[in-house]
Amino acid sequence: MSFLKNQWYCAGFGHDLAERPLAVRILDEPIVLYRLPDGRPAALHDRCPHRFAPLSRGKVCGESLQCGYHGLEFGADGSCTSNPWGDHAIPKAARVRSYPLVERDMFLWIWMGDPALAREEEALDLGTFFNRPQHPVVYDSYKLEANYEVVVDNLLDLSHGIYLHGGTLTNGKEGAGKMRVEMKQEGDTVIALHRRDNELPAPFLSKAWGGRTERVNHRSDMHWHPAGNLVHVVGITEIGQPQGRDDGVYLHVAHILTPISERQTHYHWIAARNFALDDAEAGKALHAAIHRAFTQEDEPMIAAVQERMGTTDLMALRPVLLPGDAAALRARRITDQLRKRELDAAPVAPVTFRAAVTPT
Amino acid sequence: MSFLKNQWYCAGFGHDLAERPLAVRILDEPIVLYRLPDGRPAALHDRCPHRFAPLSRGKVCGESLQCGYHGLEFGADGSCTSNPWGDHAIPKAARVRSYPLVERDMFLWIWMGDPALAREEEALDLGTFFNRPQHPVVYDSYKLEANYEVVVDNLLDLSHGIYLHGGTLTNGKEGAGKMRVEMKQEGDTVIALHRRDNELPAPFLSKAWGGRTERVNHRSDMHWHPAGNLVHVVGITEIGQPQGRDDGVYLHVAHILTPISERQTHYHWIAARNFALDDAEAGKALHAAIHRAFTQEDEPMIAAVQERMGTTDLMALRPVLLPGDAAALRARRITDQLRKRELDAAPVAPVTFRAAVTPT
Amino acid sequence: MSFLKNQWYCAGFGHDLAERPLAVRILDEPIVLYRLPDGRPAALHDRCPHRFAPLSRGKVCGESLQCGYHGLEFGADGSCTSNPWGDHAIPKAARVRSYPLVERDMFLWIWMGDPALAREEEALDLGTFFNRPQHPVVYDSYKLEANYEVVVDNLLDLSHGIYLHGGTLTNGKEGAGKMRVEMKQEGDTVIALHRRDNELPAPFLSKAWGGRTERVNHRSDMHWHPAGNLVHVVGITEIGQPQGRDDGVYLHVAHILTPISERQTHYHWIAARNFALDDAEAGKALHAAIHRAFTQEDEPMIAAVQERMGTTDLMALRPVLLPGDAAALRARRITDQLRKRELDAAPVAPVTFRAAVTPT
Repeated sequence: MSFLKNQWYCAGFGHDLAERPLAVRILDEPIVLYRLPDGRPAALHDRCPHRFAPLSRGKVCGESLQCGYHGLEFGADGSCTSNPWGDHAIPKAARVRSYPLVERDMFLWIWMGDPALAREEEALDLGTFFNRPQHPVVYDSYKLEANYEVVVDNLLDLSHGIYLHGGTLTNGKEGAGKMRVEMKQEGDTVIALHRRDNELPAPFLSKAWGGRTERVNHRSDMHWHPAGNLVHVVGITEIGQPQGRDDGVYLHVAHILTPISERQTHYHWIAARNFALDDAEAGKALHAAIHRAFTQEDEPMIAAVQERMGTTDLMALRPVLLPGDAAALRARRITDQLRKRELDAAPVAPVTFRAAVTPT
Repeated sequence: MSFLKNQWYCAGFGHDLAERPLAVRILDEPIVLYRLPDGRPAALHDRCPHRFAPLSRGKVCGESLQCGYHGLEFGADGSCTSNPWGDHAIPKAARVRSYPLVERDMFLWIWMGDPALAREEEALDLGTFFNRPQHPVVYDSYKLEANYEVVVDNLLDLSHGIYLHGGTLTNGKEGAGKMRVEMKQEGDTVIALHRRDNELPAPFLSKAWGGRTERVNHRSDMHWHPAGNLVHVVGITEIGQPQGRDDGVYLHVAHILTPISERQTHYHWIAARNFALDDAEAGKALHAAIHRAFTQEDEPMIAAVQERMGTTDLMALRPVLLPGDAAALRARRITDQLRKRELDAAPVAPVTFRAAVTPT
Repeated sequence: MSFLKNQWYCAGFGHDLAERPLAVRILDEPIVLYRLPDGRPAALHDRCPHRFAPLSRGKVCGESLQCGYHGLEFGADGSCTSNPWGDHAIPKAARVRSYPLVERDMFLWIWMGDPALAREEEALDLGTFFNRPQHPVVYDSYKLEANYEVVVDNLLDLSHGIYLHGGTLTNGKEGAGKMRVEMKQEGDTVIALHRRDNELPAPFLSKAWGGRTERVNHRSDMHWHPAGNLVHVVGITEIGQPQGRDDGVYLHVAHILTPISERQTHYHWIAARNFALDDAEAGKALHAAIHRAFTQEDEPMIAAVQERMGTTDLMALRPVLLPGDAAALRARRITDQLRKRELDAAPVAPVTFRAAVTPT
């Protein structure tokens, strides 16, 4: 299953990119990120066309990245800007692929496909979520041993919370029979709504709810955008009250998935809360709860599922399907359509970089 | 080289299976074992047909095993017994393969082939060996990095004891020229008899012999049953005395080999002694001697041999053959015949489980 | 890319081979080295033809190596010298491949090709370098995760010193524009000359230069001999003085590369100095400087280059070429010619050992 190329993918948190170049692998391509003197980030193919050293082992020299092996320098557009050897002429083939890169909110977004199709305004805009000073955030990132679509499956079917996160993120089995699930599609966006009414507050929210023990209504609204970006509202409200985006006690969460390789995924998440606003300890506790649920419950299960699947082609395994699978299946179908559209539109030669030999 | 399917294989020691489900890999298939409320053990394919989570990550719920991801439950016969979602209807394809499983003596035995051919009475009966209260046992198990047939080779040609275990299990080179080897076949059983007369007691038995220093006769009778079950009598008697199964000072040992995958083997052993009956320290010393010989002498050599072979097809390497190889070669020939018989009798489609899609 | 077979390869330092047999892997073949009672070294294929145990797990018995599994013994010519079993007859097929082996200076040299073509006098003679008592040596060896030709590339293009070793082996970027490079070929030997005039003494030589701060001339003369043996003079002289092999303060270094497998290389080096002759601390400091430069600068870069190349066929990647690449490219061209010559001259069947079955 090939990756979608013509998409903006998260290349990392912006604050992780400082003076030193940063090596990342995205869609199984080696990429080096660095910052220009004015702070703008740039992304190049992480392989010098001379002796194939990773440019990420070099250093930033002004606007360019200097190879740490023999000193060729490359600018943000991928052209060679300096050759310290011989007559200092720049060999015609001395250039590397450059990738469109945008910094928006806390994230760096990279375009892995045809640069002519990149529209910066289409990179995920999380501003309405995270640019509110009154909503403090916690965040983290992990490397998962699974194809990113298996992680999308996990996030679009939160019925797993009853079993996998019973006692941590949910109250467990009590909720199974009562969960209501709804799926909608808007353009290429899939929306999965989960409702659990008249339940005790979920453990990780009970303190935010002031320790009150009355039953409440739970809501979870997940919006999936291709390829692996999920925006999520999860919260509780008093029974009988409205359950809108900004009602009650809630978290606004972004789950951002970037394929590292066919069976590895980089997962960045960020969660903004509307409670315990000035309480740093509450923020730490919230981070700890999400971190624990993810690293001790989701992550091992997702890796085990990938291992047992033995492939990334879920449908070829002919899974038994349950009602909760509707959203995840719709996302897979949209992904398949986008993949087909990309392959049909592809130029005769694939868009990959290849250095030509300099005659000597 | 495919595995023999229509055989009982050891799935583990019975005492290792308690409240929690247990994941094992046998013939490269993932299996989950669990106990029903009445104590009977059950074995299922360790993969939920819904999202392919390992069922071994779930928990036992009454007679069923509950998937830890989305909560489907499966009974000991592999049928789905509960679907907590939607209208609770059981999807027709929601079932997993169930394996015949027998608990006998200290072992769990699993049938990996056509269930219609499984006869419980054919699972290895070690009762005459180990069900004698007067014969205390020691036991252990290891994971080896080699095909199980390479381990059978090791156990059916104990001439290696002179070199590999010289000073621990044998007195070393002195015995090489004097060892007498005999091979017999009875049905599909291969019997390898090794005799070393008029030697000092083997180091690991000398204490059992009361520290006496007269020379003795050594015997080792190994019975191999397909695929990898070996029953072994090893002992010493005074010169001129009978060398029957129950004469002198002896151990009755079972060496039980289960293929994990093509190049990994699970090895369970158990040894009953007729000496130092009430002496727990003697039991510990005996365990330590066998454990040391196996983990420090046999195991590294067997893994090194497998690595140097680079294949599991010994005969394709055209080995130089010595007299001591007769029993091991006979066992390989019987295995080849059984393999051919299985393949010839196989139905058109192989006996493997495959879930069908539930139309949604 | 197949290896050159008809070459002498370094099998190790002679002083590392003592009473116990030593296992090495060369050109992806398992080899066991051992010493005969008179001290001569011998090399055999490290796999017993009986059950394929590594002979290196056995022990030296007089002139022979005894297999540690079942006791067959093999002499330095590869013939079986003892069978302890049955009638003690030696099975006709019981022999292993023997390799020509020479001990010269500090090195053991092994011939991996047709024994009929081995001429001991062609093994690298480092005597004029290292047999001078007045020139103390330091040495070491490492295992690298790269094809040996990638390491040759590194050593024949020392322009990398400016960037990769700036501040340790060189004064860094200052030198880039001033470095003069010359390449010569003499027979199958490639000579790469690097000159940097009028520079501060290189950091690792400054102490040897008595801490004097005048500018000096630097020279580096590298001689490559197939397949991977490089002899190197590196030194500094006062400006205006001759720059011959034995002028000024210098090191005579041998860089000896042996392919372990396609992407692993054993690297032995030895460096003789003409300064601080009785100063053991200076020797330690020199070892530390070379060791540090190699393990912290070269080794990670070479492994990263190999990983990024993803192949051992450099030219297939169409590298951009710089003037400094001339010597390395010439060495690759000579290697290609020698490879072609070997393949053209090869007998119909390749020269590999294969045991025949002994009928039983």
